[in-house]
Amino acid sequence: MPKRVYNFCPGPCTLPYEVLEETQSELVNYKDTGMSIIEHSHRGKHYDEVHCEVVDLVRELLAVPDEFTILLIQGGATLQFAMSAMNLLTPDDKAGFVNSGHWAKLAMKDAKVYANVYTAWDGSAENFSRSPKAEEIELESDTSYLHVTTNETIGGVRLFEWPDIGVPLVADMSSDYLSRPIPWELINVAYGGAQKNIGPSGVALVIVRKSVLETKPRELPSYLDYRRQHESGSRFNTPAVFPIYVAGKVLKYYKEHGGVEEFAKIARIKSGHVYDAIDASDGFYDCPVQGESRSFMNVVFRMPSDKLQSDFQEQAESVGLVNLGGHRSVGGLRASIYNSMPMEGAETLANFMSEFRAANSK
Amino acid sequence: MPKRVYNFCPGPCTLPYEVLEETQSELVNYKDTGMSIIEHSHRGKHYDEVHCEVVDLVRELLAVPDEFTILLIQGGATLQFAMSAMNLLTPDDKAGFVNSGHWAKLAMKDAKVYANVYTAWDGSAENFSRSPKAEEIELESDTSYLHVTTNETIGGVRLFEWPDIGVPLVADMSSDYLSRPIPWELINVAYGGAQKNIGPSGVALVIVRKSVLETKPRELPSYLDYRRQHESGSRFNTPAVFPIYVAGKVLKYYKEHGGVEEFAKIARIKSGHVYDAIDASDGFYDCPVQGESRSFMNVVFRMPSDKLQSDFQEQAESVGLVNLGGHRSVGGLRASIYNSMPMEGAETLANFMSEFRAANSK
Repeated sequence: MPKRVYNFCPGPCTLPYEVLEETQSELVNYKDTGMSIIEHSHRGKHYDEVHCEVVDLVRELLAVPDEFTILLIQGGATLQFAMSAMNLLTPDDKAGFVNSGHWAKLAMKDAKVYANVYTAWDGSAENFSRSPKAEEIELESDTSYLHVTTNETIGGVRLFEWPDIGVPLVADMSSDYLSRPIPWELINVAYGGAQKNIGPSGVALVIVRKSVLETKPRELPSYLDYRRQHESGSRFNTPAVFPIYVAGKVLKYYKEHGGVEEFAKIARIKSGHVYDAIDASDGFYDCPVQGESRSFMNVVFRMPSDKLQSDFQEQAESVGLVNLGGHRSVGGLRASIYNSMPMEGAETLANFMSEFRAANSK
Repeated sequence: MPKRVYNFCPGPCTLPYEVLEETQSELVNYKDTGMSIIEHSHRGKHYDEVHCEVVDLVRELLAVPDEFTILLIQGGATLQFAMSAMNLLTPDDKAGFVNSGHWAKLAMKDAKVYANVYTAWDGSAENFSRSPKAEEIELESDTSYLHVTTNETIGGVRLFEWPDIGVPLVADMSSDYLSRPIPWELINVAYGGAQKNIGPSGVALVIVRKSVLETKPRELPSYLDYRRQHESGSRFNTPAVFPIYVAGKVLKYYKEHGGVEEFAKIARIKSGHVYDAIDASDGFYDCPVQGESRSFMNVVFRMPSDKLQSDFQEQAESVGLVNLGGHRSVGGLRASIYNSMPMEGAETLANFMSEFRAANSK
């Protein structure tokens, strides 16, 4: 095994080493076909197997009921901000948004192009330090759906309670997909970019309740129409072959290692190591997110000075703990600890934090 | 070198062997960073180098003037059918379309969602056997742009003359991008999926005249707005890292092997071998496309019976000439001979065609 770092990047992010090795070994000559998987036709049997296996694994790992279709669409979660609204809402319809931070705001802005949107709960007054309880969410009458961001990658805020409040949910799950079970009875659409818990960047996993496709709220061009994507199995044009192919390997790895329930437990333990280091630091490390809203995927924290923060990053990097900077919009530090981060990575980081504090606190 | 076939797939398609080998060698540990390029942040310096190099190589290889911005957008050419229309036209504007076949029709259908469209030249009466001369194209007054498909991948029809008729062009170049110089003075937008002459599937190369971005014809969500893509260097959300990374290697390969002018010459020679085999066959092989409209990328032909066609494909496959079936909508045979197909591949196919004819014609 060549030199390998612990990569805490928020996405694209670390992938299982086994997946990278297998991808490498197959890259030039896939299954002795005399060509790479990226040279195969997206309508040929080899890619067909890859594609269908990804869909089947998603259905199995997330226990997706038959009433939902599983789509693999390019453009990331950002394109889904728009697609979910244009496919589900007429211009007169109304959708509520839980404003939990950066990504929720962007989702709302794009949806506004297509329909009426309003803030059903606003975390800004508390500086986005928590997610709401269901009873705090204020729905207006005739709301078609409530949009939630199940994990704010930048703010490190987790939606700890799925709101069961009489309207279906549209959920951006980009940064905690496959790390928690999904209550499908509450969901109309779940979507997310692959580049955190699913695979490389370049594809979004979009899971849509089929009944919402029965009425078409507006004319839509082919790529942006969930109905066309559904009817064609996400393949009326050429899909993102390589990202989907690697996603299949990641999903297989999850299955072999215990599935979503197991990764949910592990996520709590891994992030717990880092939160423990924060909470035991007498304020040397400070996490702005409150208790049960703390993300199991993205642990954000700050230190008493910018100097300490940059020393921390530099020294961490020198021992192979990399990409710990916070998002450029908020600064500070952030450890993204997705499914593919080994337990040892989280432990090593927590130990490093304790040592760094011992060496640098007065 | 492992077993390698000649892959005549219309896309995804064959890539330079050197590119695959280099991609493989770097896959697990990119530039000794302890991680794969697909695990690197899209905002980090390593991916930044990759991304900027692709843009620079496109500008150099296609001699793209500074008045154009070079975008890398997911969703393939199909999403550009819609994006080009929604970004350039108000609902009252009008665009003309050269109906050269399958892809032109789909482009027109999607554009129709956003504006007025009309057929400015119709190849259907001649069964899409040729492209038009400029003087045959009939523009209506107040036409904002003329849409052309520079190469019909399914029909094997090449736009041999760029229409210089007083309105700017929007050009779908998916299947002959990088195989011919582009007359930028006539162009407002050129676009195309990567998976033929650029790299793996998962990204489209979209080149837009900056002046058309000065007015915004409608509200647009972030991903679909050329202005946002331009301002952010195609990176306000996570781009398709791996497809862009491999595209960079392909483009470097083109540069090292003489650039677009050279590949244009080679394309003529390679496809010429196959057209010669067709034309020397006394009608055993029949190409429905007329003279100068014959594609240099996709050579389509038919044989006297379905039985012969399936024997041909089977025997070709047994000698390593694969993916020669025509598109499911038209049947017959098709040899896609993109930039990365070696000269020997085209020669071997032409020889095989002569031998097969000798063995099977009465």
